[in-house]
Amino acid sequence: MSTSPRQLKFGAILTGVGTAQNEWLHPEIPGDASIDIDWYRQQAQQAEAAKFDLIFIVDSPYITPDSAPHYLNRLEPLTLLSAVAGATSKIGLVATLTTSYTEPFNVARQFASLDLISGGRAGWNVVTTGLEGAAGNFGREQHIDHTERYRRAGEHLQVVQGLWDSYEDDAFVRDKQSGVFLDPQRQHRLDHQGEFFSVTGPLNIARSPQGQPVIFQAGISESGRNLAANFAEGIFAGVDNFEDARAYYQDIKQRTAAAGRNPDHVTILPGIAPIIADTDEQAQAIDRERHGELDLHKALVQLGRPFNYHDFSQYPLDEPFPDLGDLGSNGYRGHAEHIKHVAREQGLTLRQAAWRFAAPFSNFVGSPKTVADEIERWFVEGAVDGFNIRVGAPGEFARFTNEVLPLLRERGLFRSEYSHSTLRGHLGLPVPVNRHSAARVAQAVTVGEHLQAVGA
Amino acid sequence: MSTSPRQLKFGAILTGVGTAQNEWLHPEIPGDASIDIDWYRQQAQQAEAAKFDLIFIVDSPYITPDSAPHYLNRLEPLTLLSAVAGATSKIGLVATLTTSYTEPFNVARQFASLDLISGGRAGWNVVTTGLEGAAGNFGREQHIDHTERYRRAGEHLQVVQGLWDSYEDDAFVRDKQSGVFLDPQRQHRLDHQGEFFSVTGPLNIARSPQGQPVIFQAGISESGRNLAANFAEGIFAGVDNFEDARAYYQDIKQRTAAAGRNPDHVTILPGIAPIIADTDEQAQAIDRERHGELDLHKALVQLGRPFNYHDFSQYPLDEPFPDLGDLGSNGYRGHAEHIKHVAREQGLTLRQAAWRFAAPFSNFVGSPKTVADEIERWFVEGAVDGFNIRVGAPGEFARFTNEVLPLLRERGLFRSEYSHSTLRGHLGLPVPVNRHSAARVAQAVTVGEHLQAVGA
Repeated sequence: MSTSPRQLKFGAILTGVGTAQNEWLHPEIPGDASIDIDWYRQQAQQAEAAKFDLIFIVDSPYITPDSAPHYLNRLEPLTLLSAVAGATSKIGLVATLTTSYTEPFNVARQFASLDLISGGRAGWNVVTTGLEGAAGNFGREQHIDHTERYRRAGEHLQVVQGLWDSYEDDAFVRDKQSGVFLDPQRQHRLDHQGEFFSVTGPLNIARSPQGQPVIFQAGISESGRNLAANFAEGIFAGVDNFEDARAYYQDIKQRTAAAGRNPDHVTILPGIAPIIADTDEQAQAIDRERHGELDLHKALVQLGRPFNYHDFSQYPLDEPFPDLGDLGSNGYRGHAEHIKHVAREQGLTLRQAAWRFAAPFSNFVGSPKTVADEIERWFVEGAVDGFNIRVGAPGEFARFTNEVLPLLRERGLFRSEYSHSTLRGHLGLPVPVNRHSAARVAQAVTVGEHLQAVGA
Repeated sequence: MSTSPRQLKFGAILTGVGTAQNEWLHPEIPGDASIDIDWYRQQAQQAEAAKFDLIFIVDSPYITPDSAPHYLNRLEPLTLLSAVAGATSKIGLVATLTTSYTEPFNVARQFASLDLISGGRAGWNVVTTGLEGAAGNFGREQHIDHTERYRRAGEHLQVVQGLWDSYEDDAFVRDKQSGVFLDPQRQHRLDHQGEFFSVTGPLNIARSPQGQPVIFQAGISESGRNLAANFAEGIFAGVDNFEDARAYYQDIKQRTAAAGRNPDHVTILPGIAPIIADTDEQAQAIDRERHGELDLHKALVQLGRPFNYHDFSQYPLDEPFPDLGDLGSNGYRGHAEHIKHVAREQGLTLRQAAWRFAAPFSNFVGSPKTVADEIERWFVEGAVDGFNIRVGAPGEFARFTNEVLPLLRERGLFRSEYSHSTLRGHLGLPVPVNRHSAARVAQAVTVGEHLQAVGA
């Protein structure tokens, strides 16, 4: 066994009833899996036993009656992960929450609380909400414009991270002898005044063992990539082939460096759904069989989602993908642009586009060795830092953890044991120094002052 | 042992480091108790072993450097209780959340999720936030006016309860044979348009085993009492003597009846902090000794809290309680009015008012028998339906559970075993019928239609 200094990172996207169109019909998956906390606890434990870096919960705050099963009925991510925290001890816990329809003060408290509850394992997947209908659940006639959403997201994040620095590490003295609970010099107001938010602070919760929760992002539009370059420490990107993944990877790493950050401090983990069988032929047969059972109408609904549930049933199926003009630019813009671009470049019909984007074949299909080889190739050739594995049926996930991961371990590419107990530790991310402590250290002139400044 | 048809109800207010001024100095209480999830899990288990109805988490979204320790550093209530849910199986879980600085769609999801995670044990203590400084954490120059806060609270609650009825009980068919996941006829939009909120719905989470989370309220002002009469199923009221408690109890029950509701469906549980020792004399000595250690300056800060942290140190201590005019009417109005009223009626000096209201003696001090007698008197004579016990040091709570509760059980006043596993079950509250199912039943004309309408 060799060891590589660069190690694969793995996340498990726990999806309840599964995200593929007919996945909820799988005999191993209960119909109420998405609201069954024990289902999540067991899958989190399965992922932790396999030494995964994190589990990941996706989310969106709007549905229609036509929405797929995993959107219709599911637990809220923060309460879900707080409940899973007690059933696990090492694995990271990443929850999706929008910046478009939340208050930064509340968000900062929720994630800081999850971070303390879990002993430093919390991460926040920052999204801006791509569905226009969400506006109607939050008192707005119109969804916030895409550009404004991303400006708001950047400011929201600044406020949340500022609130997370309300207390220096040693602010809570808690000295029963002297009766001093808080050192008020190490509690800091924020007094943020910006375009979207004005927030005085301070927060009413101490820093966690990992300093601040880890920031994830999933944007693939221009605005999304820039937000990621400035803030993201992890990326859950929706790329669907090696070339796109590598181009995206290099672009993000370059933008991160250009923003003055260390590109190693952003971990890029696209979501994939491997299909594993004893042989490549068997795996391919499973993929084909499943694909053959899919419903075109449902695929058209799903295809419409990045375009704000645009009704694609109005177009002829076997003519070129329709010209949609600006449609989707205020929705999931990056996804919508990708679909339009590929459909145009490759001359896809609507039917082909529906299958391709809304009911795709898996990229990782084959024997355990084939899947491990493909994972290694993407990793070694600079397309990913690892993957987020979509978890549906436990038996299929077990094939990945029990048959693919050991091969990657033999190659020295993935851990056999945890060496840390925080999410930052797993991902090799530094613990952010509190900005106020940093300022005090910067102002200190002598060694003695420096030691006093850092509380040594 | 006799059994009474009317049974006492008990809640445990888990306070972390404790709410009394010097309680965090208690040798049994760790300085970081308020951010230690295991501390809460253990106390919840202690309360569940004693067959308590519920645990209760208070909250507020604003602090100053002078705030008491239990305000300064604490976990967020929804994440906290989601984490406690897995360490318990029967006890109710009640979290405080404000209607003034939250979105009903997010609140509905969080509590519905906690309710499903806990198997039907969630309750929401609805508050409007009494501290003007909170406005600054949520982008407002001024705190919402008291009257408007309560109008907003009523509408917020209407929206949340409407969203909780998005699905009839049998809406999620999940029939793998037919491939039907959702019966769209039993999913309902809300389409609420009101003074403060417009929310389309539907929610993206099914109903829980108790139908809807239980609504708690704590208001003692006129607006608070009216909100309670219309919505509350449990009340955590801050009354400090028997006469006031009885007057409040009768007033709330009358208002509830006048609002067309069954007064038995609102459970009134004032918060108390008993001091129990082997003898009455010993308990009284403990109370006196603790009181003698209190700090007048801290009591003045705490006295200022209902008046938006008004600075009482500017007034002479031994002259009559100052004339504050309207001060406090936009804060914790009910508390502020009560303090001003009692101080005037009884001719208290500022010093006397500080001790009386901000560092009070306990009402329930004595041997286990004395405390049990007093609890029985308040209950039998119509001042309470039970109590919320403030839990600080585990040893003191153990004296209550191990020495007082057995006496109440002998008298047939409190359960020895749980007979239900939901909070509604414990409190004797009906499971609310989904409004859309109710409408369908009401429209059904024949018996056959009725049975079909209820899905039988």
